[in-house]
Amino acid sequence: MAIRIGIMGYGNLGRGIECAVKQNDDMELAAVFTRRDPSTVKIQTEGVAVYPAADAAAHKDEIDVLILCGGSATDLPEQTPEYVKYFNVVDSFDTHANIPSHFANVDAAAKAAGNVGIISVGWDPGMFSLNRLYANCILVDGADYTFWGKGVSQGHSDAIRRVKGVKNAKQYTVPVPKALEAVRNGENPELSTRQKHTRECYVAAEEGADKEQIVNDIVTMPNYFADYDTTVNFVSEEELIKNHSGIPHGGFVIRSGRTGQNGENKHIIEYSLKLDSNPEFTSCVLVAYARAAYRLNKEGASGAKTVFDIAPAYLSSKSGEELRAHLL
Amino acid sequence: MAIRIGIMGYGNLGRGIECAVKQNDDMELAAVFTRRDPSTVKIQTEGVAVYPAADAAAHKDEIDVLILCGGSATDLPEQTPEYVKYFNVVDSFDTHANIPSHFANVDAAAKAAGNVGIISVGWDPGMFSLNRLYANCILVDGADYTFWGKGVSQGHSDAIRRVKGVKNAKQYTVPVPKALEAVRNGENPELSTRQKHTRECYVAAEEGADKEQIVNDIVTMPNYFADYDTTVNFVSEEELIKNHSGIPHGGFVIRSGRTGQNGENKHIIEYSLKLDSNPEFTSCVLVAYARAAYRLNKEGASGAKTVFDIAPAYLSSKSGEELRAHLL
Repeated sequence: MAIRIGIMGYGNLGRGIECAVKQNDDMELAAVFTRRDPSTVKIQTEGVAVYPAADAAAHKDEIDVLILCGGSATDLPEQTPEYVKYFNVVDSFDTHANIPSHFANVDAAAKAAGNVGIISVGWDPGMFSLNRLYANCILVDGADYTFWGKGVSQGHSDAIRRVKGVKNAKQYTVPVPKALEAVRNGENPELSTRQKHTRECYVAAEEGADKEQIVNDIVTMPNYFADYDTTVNFVSEEELIKNHSGIPHGGFVIRSGRTGQNGENKHIIEYSLKLDSNPEFTSCVLVAYARAAYRLNKEGASGAKTVFDIAPAYLSSKSGEELRAHLL
Repeated sequence: MAIRIGIMGYGNLGRGIECAVKQNDDMELAAVFTRRDPSTVKIQTEGVAVYPAADAAAHKDEIDVLILCGGSATDLPEQTPEYVKYFNVVDSFDTHANIPSHFANVDAAAKAAGNVGIISVGWDPGMFSLNRLYANCILVDGADYTFWGKGVSQGHSDAIRRVKGVKNAKQYTVPVPKALEAVRNGENPELSTRQKHTRECYVAAEEGADKEQIVNDIVTMPNYFADYDTTVNFVSEEELIKNHSGIPHGGFVIRSGRTGQNGENKHIIEYSLKLDSNPEFTSCVLVAYARAAYRLNKEGASGAKTVFDIAPAYLSSKSGEELRAHLL
C-alpha cells in the first residue's frame, strides 16, 4: 500500500511536494490543506481533495505523513508542534538559531502522541548539514566553508522591494570565485562576509524614481547589503519578469583538512548543488524524509528527529539487499 | 573513558588508522596485531603493544573496536567473519560484486556473538555510496555518474610491473574533463569506458628493455588498459620515486535529475574528494565508523551493517544538542 502524503500549505513548496510525490511510486497524494478558501485552490492531481487547514485533524486516519509547507518565521513554530499531535510530520524549519527550541517543542508533542516529527529538512538546513557533519567526523583537523548561490534570496529581494521608488526586484547571492578557489586549493583562508559572497540586484524602478537614491538605499542597507559588494542593475519590469522569474539556487559545502604524522597530507571534501528550482529540490528532500518518518513510526519510533538521526537507508524505497547490491 | 581501538594489520591503512586515532580525543590505540614477527614492527604510538595476529582473541577484553586493515581479495573474506566473533569490527571490503555474500557471512557471525560488524567503509564503497544513495532518493528521475581520480590505482600499477622489461611503475586514473563538464551541465551523456577516464602510466624500464614492446604490452592489456586511452611515459627510477611516490586519489559522484510538472527543472548534486593520501583518508572514515560500531553495540545492536544503516549522528563524538546547535 502506498504511503499517503498530505500537504499543508499550497504555495511554491506545496506544489513542489505534489510533483515529487508523483515521481515516487510508493507514495500517493491523499489531501491538500490550505488556509485559503479551498474552492479557490486548484491543484494538479486529479481526484484529490483540498480541505481547510482548520479541519486537518479530522483527516488524520487518511494520511500517513503530513508535509508542512509553511514559513519558518511564524507558521512552523506553531504548526509543527500542533500537527505532530495527529500526524507524522516533516518540516523545513530553517531559522538556524531557533532550531534547538523548535526541536524541543516538536519532541515533546511528538512523544506524547507517539508520532515522528522530522524538522529542518531541505538542503540548508538538510543536505548541507549532513555534509558538514560527515566531513567533520572524517577530517577532524580541518576547516568548514559554506558558500551559497548563485541563487535567488527571497528575503533580500523582499528587502529591495520595500525601498522607495522600487516597483519590483530580484536579488542573487553569488559566491566569490577567488574565495571558492582558495578554499578548494586547501589554503584555509580566513574570509570576511564581503570576501565570500557578492549580491547582484535587478531592479524595476517606478516611473520618475530617483535611481541614485535607490542604489544608495540598497547598498547601505544594514544586515542585508552593507557588508557586501552589491551591484544594482536597473531593468524594465518586462525584462525582470522575462529573465528573472526563476527560483534557482545552490551552493557549496567544503571541508579542508589534514592527516598524517605531522599533518603532511591535505584533503578536500566538497559537496555542491546547482538547482533550477529551490522549492522543487527542497520538496524532493522533504518527500524522501517523509518516507523515513513513515517507516520509523511503523517500527515504533516517536519524537523529533533531524537528518542527523536518520540512517540513509530509511530514505529509500529499496530493500537493504537491493541497496547493497546496486548502490554500495 | 576513551574508546579502545585495535588495529589488525600494520600496512598503509593500519598506519593511517594510528594517525587518525590520535586526532580523535575520545579514542585511544589499545593494540596492533600483525602476521609478521611483532618484534620487527615498529609503531609510532609509545606504550602500545604489537601482538601476533593469531593471539588477537585473547585480547578481546582490552579492545572496544578492532579495525581490519587487510585486503579484500583474501584477507577480509576470512578475517571479518572470524574477528567479529570476539570484537566489534570495521572493514573496508571493496570488492563490490561480493558485498552481498560478505555481508551475509559477517551478519551471521556478528549476530551469534552479539557484536557489530560494519563492512565496506571508506570512500568507494563508503562516502561515494552514501552520496549515490542520498542523491538517488532525492532526485528520483535522474542519472548517476561516478568518476575516479586523478589518483593512483594500485592494481593497475601492479599490472604494469608484471610487464616484461618494466622495473617499476605508477598508474594514474584520470577523469576526462569534457565528460565531467557534460555531466555537470546536466546533458546526461551516455559515456563509454573510454570516454570517462584516461590512464597515465609512468614507467621505469630495465636497462636495454624494448620500450616499444612495453608500450604495446601495456596499452593492449585486456581489462586493465585495452578499453582506455592510455599514455605511457618513461622516466628514470629516481624520478619515479621522487615525483610519483604519493598515493593521491579522489573522484566525483554526480547525480543529474529533473523535477516539475513536466521535468522542466534540472538539478545537479555533486560530491567530490581530492585526497593527498588515499589510505589516510580511508582510515579517517574507518575510525569515524568505529565510533558508530562502539555506540551501536553499547545500545544493544548486533549484526552486519553498512554506511547505509547508520544514522550520521553516530559518527560524531558530539551530543545531539551540540550537533543541532552548530552543524544543522
